[in-house]
Amino acid sequence: MSIEILPDLLGVFFFAVSGSLLAGRKGFDLIGSLLLGSLVGLGGGVARDLIIGQIPAAFSNPVYLLPPVLAALLVFWLYNSVEKIGRWLTVFDAAGLALFCITGTVKALNFGFNPVASVLLGVTSAVGGGLLRDVVANQVPQLFNSHDIYAIPAILGATLAAFAWTGRWLNVGTGIAIAVVVFTFRIAAWHFRWHAPLAVRKNKL
Amino acid sequence: MSIEILPDLLGVFFFAVSGSLLAGRKGFDLIGSLLLGSLVGLGGGVARDLIIGQIPAAFSNPVYLLPPVLAALLVFWLYNSVEKIGRWLTVFDAAGLALFCITGTVKALNFGFNPVASVLLGVTSAVGGGLLRDVVANQVPQLFNSHDIYAIPAILGATLAAFAWTGRWLNVGTGIAIAVVVFTFRIAAWHFRWHAPLAVRKNKL
Amino acid sequence: MSIEILPDLLGVFFFAVSGSLLAGRKGFDLIGSLLLGSLVGLGGGVARDLIIGQIPAAFSNPVYLLPPVLAALLVFWLYNSVEKIGRWLTVFDAAGLALFCITGTVKALNFGFNPVASVLLGVTSAVGGGLLRDVVANQVPQLFNSHDIYAIPAILGATLAAFAWTGRWLNVGTGIAIAVVVFTFRIAAWHFRWHAPLAVRKNKL
Repeated sequence: MSIEILPDLLGVFFFAVSGSLLAGRKGFDLIGSLLLGSLVGLGGGVARDLIIGQIPAAFSNPVYLLPPVLAALLVFWLYNSVEKIGRWLTVFDAAGLALFCITGTVKALNFGFNPVASVLLGVTSAVGGGLLRDVVANQVPQLFNSHDIYAIPAILGATLAAFAWTGRWLNVGTGIAIAVVVFTFRIAAWHFRWHAPLAVRKNKL
Repeated sequence: MSIEILPDLLGVFFFAVSGSLLAGRKGFDLIGSLLLGSLVGLGGGVARDLIIGQIPAAFSNPVYLLPPVLAALLVFWLYNSVEKIGRWLTVFDAAGLALFCITGTVKALNFGFNPVASVLLGVTSAVGGGLLRDVVANQVPQLFNSHDIYAIPAILGATLAAFAWTGRWLNVGTGIAIAVVVFTFRIAAWHFRWHAPLAVRKNKL
Repeated sequence: MSIEILPDLLGVFFFAVSGSLLAGRKGFDLIGSLLLGSLVGLGGGVARDLIIGQIPAAFSNPVYLLPPVLAALLVFWLYNSVEKIGRWLTVFDAAGLALFCITGTVKALNFGFNPVASVLLGVTSAVGGGLLRDVVANQVPQLFNSHDIYAIPAILGATLAAFAWTGRWLNVGTGIAIAVVVFTFRIAAWHFRWHAPLAVRKNKL
């Protein structure tokens, strides 16, 4: 196991916690919690690896199954001792987003994708898990919530990661710095209710 | 056509019937019934084959299109002469589940996947079609119904199949036996309303 | 850039407009409009390319990102100056359908798929984007609307394209002719409320 998969595994864990928290709120059972956590944690990465053209890491490396198991157990034990579940869900989701937009972009660059495609793939893997979570739980995805900013931090993080990788200044320190920027941006957008312009102009021409 | 694809084709047929039954209940038209049946019957296997890294069997072998056509016609002709559609939907879905958790696991093992990944892929292909069916029909997936047990029989069947394959005692007889165990477990869980513990503990710490 | 990707890019644009129009109607923001447009415009083609076994065109060729950007901007500026959004959504969706059922079939044939599989892949790529659009926006897909005919024109177009390609009479002229037939069929079915027989017979046996 290379140290390079650590941020990927951490991202899987954070997203899996968000999935298990939603499972708890929806009244799913423990197996449903494990499955929804796995879908959210592993879904974005499986899509990423299929597009790159390799066997998804979740299937070639059994260690990827550990984070969803830990997440489901953690949520099972701690759910009732925390308050404001929605807040925790957003925080863990933001942490997953911050890591996946970087790891997805870097993995694509390492596979020889051009920078634009790599950023796109990083963003896809970052927002994909949460999209699956909300679609499967039968609600309009958070990604499309117009009272919130979700994709822009991921696009920013993926772009910064592509610049850092291309300029050869991507290392543990700068990687963590980019993740912190993305996480802070996402949480600030959620807390202060920042929002992007609507899909349509307000006034008639 | 090798005899080995027979259980796979049967599984496609069973899942396709469950899709067409749901299409009938939702008031879809005959083409919608064929498409939903195809999606349920072929979706899990297409995901399985993409992850393995080969062209999905549904696209490389036209015989896979036959079961969904038969299923849609069967449902068209017989829907009104049977009662308790929900019961039939569950029975056909359970039959598909019983076959796919075995065929998916064995296919992955034959492709050189390790046993853990093979079980995971078998479960994914077994629950994937039903998940797609419910997501597309805009309802919370049966997979996450906390008054029911759905994934555990598939996990059990995939695990048994992996043990049988590894121990070289997987043959037509033991394969059928495993499928019968999975089917019976699933139907009993549904009939007697067995359920797993909820995703969260009931009492506060 | 080969001239052959022009119809594919046009199809992406048409589908992306339908996604951005739906985003406008659902009150999504501009980024959500861009993302939903991208999902609809690129989703069917990504599925097609994954099944064929190559890196999806949307990721290997950055020019594919242009149509969704144009579509989101167009919808942003013009949404309020047009009326009957639902009608425009159907028209753009039909135009995407008409192009994708041909380009998907031809791409599969060029990759050595047999005609039946190629037609299936053409139909999958043509209906896939719209299916994703409706699933993500949390509504029962138009594909399954029993008061409408959606898949049959795509099946017809894919079949005609396969015949034309096999008989070596597929060129720009016949390609456009097939697209016009599919588009006209789809729009007429929608306008005159043609519908296929229901998934179940009306009377009991």
